[in-house]
Amino acid sequence: MTARQLTQAILAKRSFLCVGLDTDLRKTPECLRDAEDPQFSFNKAIIDATAPYTVCYKPNLAFYEENGARGWESFERTCRYIRENHPDIFIIADAKRGDIGNTSGMYARAFFEQGSVDAVTLSPYMGRDTVEPFLRYAGKWAVILALTSNPSADDFETLPLADGWMLYETVLETASGWGTVDNTMFVVGATKSEMLSSVRRIVPDHFLLVPGVGAQGGSLEEVARHGMNAGCGLLVNSSRAIIYADGTASFAATAGTKAREVQQEMDALLERFL
Amino acid sequence: MTARQLTQAILAKRSFLCVGLDTDLRKTPECLRDAEDPQFSFNKAIIDATAPYTVCYKPNLAFYEENGARGWESFERTCRYIRENHPDIFIIADAKRGDIGNTSGMYARAFFEQGSVDAVTLSPYMGRDTVEPFLRYAGKWAVILALTSNPSADDFETLPLADGWMLYETVLETASGWGTVDNTMFVVGATKSEMLSSVRRIVPDHFLLVPGVGAQGGSLEEVARHGMNAGCGLLVNSSRAIIYADGTASFAATAGTKAREVQQEMDALLERFL
Repeated sequence: MTARQLTQAILAKRSFLCVGLDTDLRKTPECLRDAEDPQFSFNKAIIDATAPYTVCYKPNLAFYEENGARGWESFERTCRYIRENHPDIFIIADAKRGDIGNTSGMYARAFFEQGSVDAVTLSPYMGRDTVEPFLRYAGKWAVILALTSNPSADDFETLPLADGWMLYETVLETASGWGTVDNTMFVVGATKSEMLSSVRRIVPDHFLLVPGVGAQGGSLEEVARHGMNAGCGLLVNSSRAIIYADGTASFAATAGTKAREVQQEMDALLERFL
Repeated sequence: MTARQLTQAILAKRSFLCVGLDTDLRKTPECLRDAEDPQFSFNKAIIDATAPYTVCYKPNLAFYEENGARGWESFERTCRYIRENHPDIFIIADAKRGDIGNTSGMYARAFFEQGSVDAVTLSPYMGRDTVEPFLRYAGKWAVILALTSNPSADDFETLPLADGWMLYETVLETASGWGTVDNTMFVVGATKSEMLSSVRRIVPDHFLLVPGVGAQGGSLEEVARHGMNAGCGLLVNSSRAIIYADGTASFAATAGTKAREVQQEMDALLERFL
């Protein structure tokens, strides 16, 4: 998928919502506990209910790896289900991988050949070697951490460098030169929405994946105001506020309602800022 | 395992060798191709042959994830096999994970509860939140990336900061305050052995995991000269130079011979520098 195709999907659905599939077996409703594959069953119900309102799903690998090989199987089934039933929806494996060249190539194969996702989140710490193998796949994306939404993001990401920039700004500047706007995206947390303007000065044309709206407290309006570009350029993730809005047997219907509410807010913001 | 116990294991075997289980199905010998679980069969043979000469095994998750859920099963079987047959040998899951608090807690559970490893490699980019959940497990370790051995390590790791330090030095200084010498270790590449002296000024007492000896060209003697402390404080990894030394049916015997050669060199270096 190209950046232009992603923009077209956003305009068609009037939504730049990414639903995070952080599927925790401890939080899935009672009625699913005896299913043969409760993680997949939960995801399938959530996907069926939210697909009309979302352009992207983002399974978080930690929640699957916690269940070992069985969890990997649930992750793979989930991705196949999305691919087969909603081929227009972008899939990001939130894996935050990062390793040297030959190992990074293995991870790229794991997600793009063995798996069927469109994009993988990557940590930039080890530099270009980490990202390059992911850029060799036509139509696939590297989603690189820049400025995250967690409390300790300030430990290193915002450290001032000798040249006056902060580390995350140099990551944006340097890493944006490795690929193109059609295969590279950056993670910028919504809890730092005031910093989105400085991010946009460095990477005006790239898509940004924005977590931290909802449970983590970021404002969708502020994100749109400071972060939207001519092609929208935003995928805003919500996980818990949608998938765990309701812990009863009607969890999927409620998730659909919540996703629709976010989509309607996004429709208005696209009208206003695009 | 405490740092003191790790030192005792090193002195007992006269070895600070870590064998990297970067098991690539494309490189395993013909005779294993039809095995029910070729990755595990390869690892088992390598472990049986090298266990007398090594204090640590380090399976690299990328090589298992490339095979999806089946690969995760091979990884888990490998760890269980080491744990059951060589309970004194330290196991590092080379996963280079790094995520926010609740997700990082999931990864910690994946490796320390669902799995049975002693340590996990972590990327420091997102700060303390990433590492802390791993430090809550008694006897378990976080192995934090500091200065890596890949060509693009200079993209960010050695960037000069406003205070005159390089990024990796601040990572060492800051992250060494999160835990203790009994639960935190740092990755420092052997290809930068001249920088080990400056690393030792910042973290004199911590264990260092040193990749890059062998195939990547680092010198074991230089690593020992600049990096050894009073408790040895080094785990030096070798992967390809041991496990792929021989592509025939006698691969395991050759791996044992190679590991023994490294152990003998290490014995002499312990004699000289400890």
